[in-house]
Amino acid sequence: MPVGTLAVVGIGMIGGSVAAAARATGAARFIVGYGPGEDAGQALALGLVDRLCDTLEAAVAEADLVVLAAPVGAIVELLPAVAAAASAGTVVTDCGSTKRRIAQAGDAAFAGRPARFVPGHPIAGGERSGPAAAQPGLFAGRRVLLCPGEAADARALETVEAFWRQLGARVDRMDAAHHDALFAEVSHWPHAAAFALAAAIGEGPFGEEAVRAAGAGLRDTTRIAASDADLWAGILLDNRDAALESARRFREEIERVVAAIEDRDATALREALSRASRWRRRVLE
Amino acid sequence: MPVGTLAVVGIGMIGGSVAAAARATGAARFIVGYGPGEDAGQALALGLVDRLCDTLEAAVAEADLVVLAAPVGAIVELLPAVAAAASAGTVVTDCGSTKRRIAQAGDAAFAGRPARFVPGHPIAGGERSGPAAAQPGLFAGRRVLLCPGEAADARALETVEAFWRQLGARVDRMDAAHHDALFAEVSHWPHAAAFALAAAIGEGPFGEEAVRAAGAGLRDTTRIAASDADLWAGILLDNRDAALESARRFREEIERVVAAIEDRDATALREALSRASRWRRRVLE
Repeated sequence: MPVGTLAVVGIGMIGGSVAAAARATGAARFIVGYGPGEDAGQALALGLVDRLCDTLEAAVAEADLVVLAAPVGAIVELLPAVAAAASAGTVVTDCGSTKRRIAQAGDAAFAGRPARFVPGHPIAGGERSGPAAAQPGLFAGRRVLLCPGEAADARALETVEAFWRQLGARVDRMDAAHHDALFAEVSHWPHAAAFALAAAIGEGPFGEEAVRAAGAGLRDTTRIAASDADLWAGILLDNRDAALESARRFREEIERVVAAIEDRDATALREALSRASRWRRRVLE
Repeated sequence: MPVGTLAVVGIGMIGGSVAAAARATGAARFIVGYGPGEDAGQALALGLVDRLCDTLEAAVAEADLVVLAAPVGAIVELLPAVAAAASAGTVVTDCGSTKRRIAQAGDAAFAGRPARFVPGHPIAGGERSGPAAAQPGLFAGRRVLLCPGEAADARALETVEAFWRQLGARVDRMDAAHHDALFAEVSHWPHAAAFALAAAIGEGPFGEEAVRAAGAGLRDTTRIAASDADLWAGILLDNRDAALESARRFREEIERVVAAIEDRDATALREALSRASRWRRRVLE
């Protein structure tokens, strides 16, 4: 059954894609949007939302389902106002790349009421940003992880799961702390490493020549370094401890490789690279 | 004008693609191959070469153009025997990813004779290996860098340039030392960093879960870590000093990012990531 009114809060690439997918699949009858800056106006002009709201409160008050698609720090800051404006039947979810702090902020904001907030993370995106990059098919076949707390309201959970399924996603549940450690490892720290590689090359002695000389390998390896820097700074700081733990293991491996090159130790170097390629060949496309 | 007999020495993905492209474009009338292990037999079975030779000497002796497509360490080791077997008219080039040591080995091997060896590097490849991964269109529109020494024979240079152009490549010349420093930065060290990231994740606490949880970002960032480990260990050791110099700059940038996360310094982190994304968005596809 479709959602009556969907409110998308933050209408960049992800929020815009939620709106576009909800419209394309009939997952919502009416879509309102709220967001700062030029994105909101652009989303309306692109027809991603039916109407813009002047305030967060207005968007939440008339919504049956609220999807928070702002940067993770903004989600944490918005949650008290969202909870205050939500009526008894309003269900709230989010698209943040981290979940532990957001789940805690949701618990605090909805304290004493049935937990109508279901923290979520659609595993979809890309290095492009803004509503013009929105795609109605972005979530088709993709995984959405929900991290409900123990007090989660069953109907709210059902509403959020059904919504994402109608957008074509596979829905799984995961503990928020496990989610954050896993995604520090497979997404947040790899983004930091790609950003660092791009920065080192861009500002190195071959920065200009590399713009033209980059082959397919370097383009792939640094593609996510074209992502929104503010967004990813927010994610890395929100998930600080897990990101630093992933960074620690990565730096150890880097030191192992550097030492093997320094020592001209072909055996150790081959062994280190072999372990990497054996694992990478198992990664599912 | 096509080459009479082309000898491809080392018939893996690159050598196999040279043979396939030469046949597809009519760049050679007859193609012989020589290489160790199962690759050679497989290349013959796949029809990439017309005939296999039992020895390196036999392959070189009957060739008008010899293309060395072995790992970089093997090219250095093969060059004396190649020079000894080459007749006065034989032109030799290679496909190694490093050029300084190979150019020096070529100068030494052909010492006292007109330099019929033209060191080369086709900027094409991929993480797959072996003759089954050969593609006749691999070099179409790609760049081939030639690093001839000062004593280079004009006719040999012309032969090699014409050959690559017939395969669809754009040919540029570059100083061998500059080549190696540039490619340490845009290819060799980025491979090492991707291998290290894949190894850290594969052997970390989420190694198994990450096989399934890897999103498009991580798959891109680590794609080249599926490459042949022995081949890349050879490249990194051959180009040791330049690779270590690129590694030094990369590790500085990693330490800057880690320090900003540790210090919860949003301004410094955003600034570091912004510099990266500004450069990456300029990289030509």
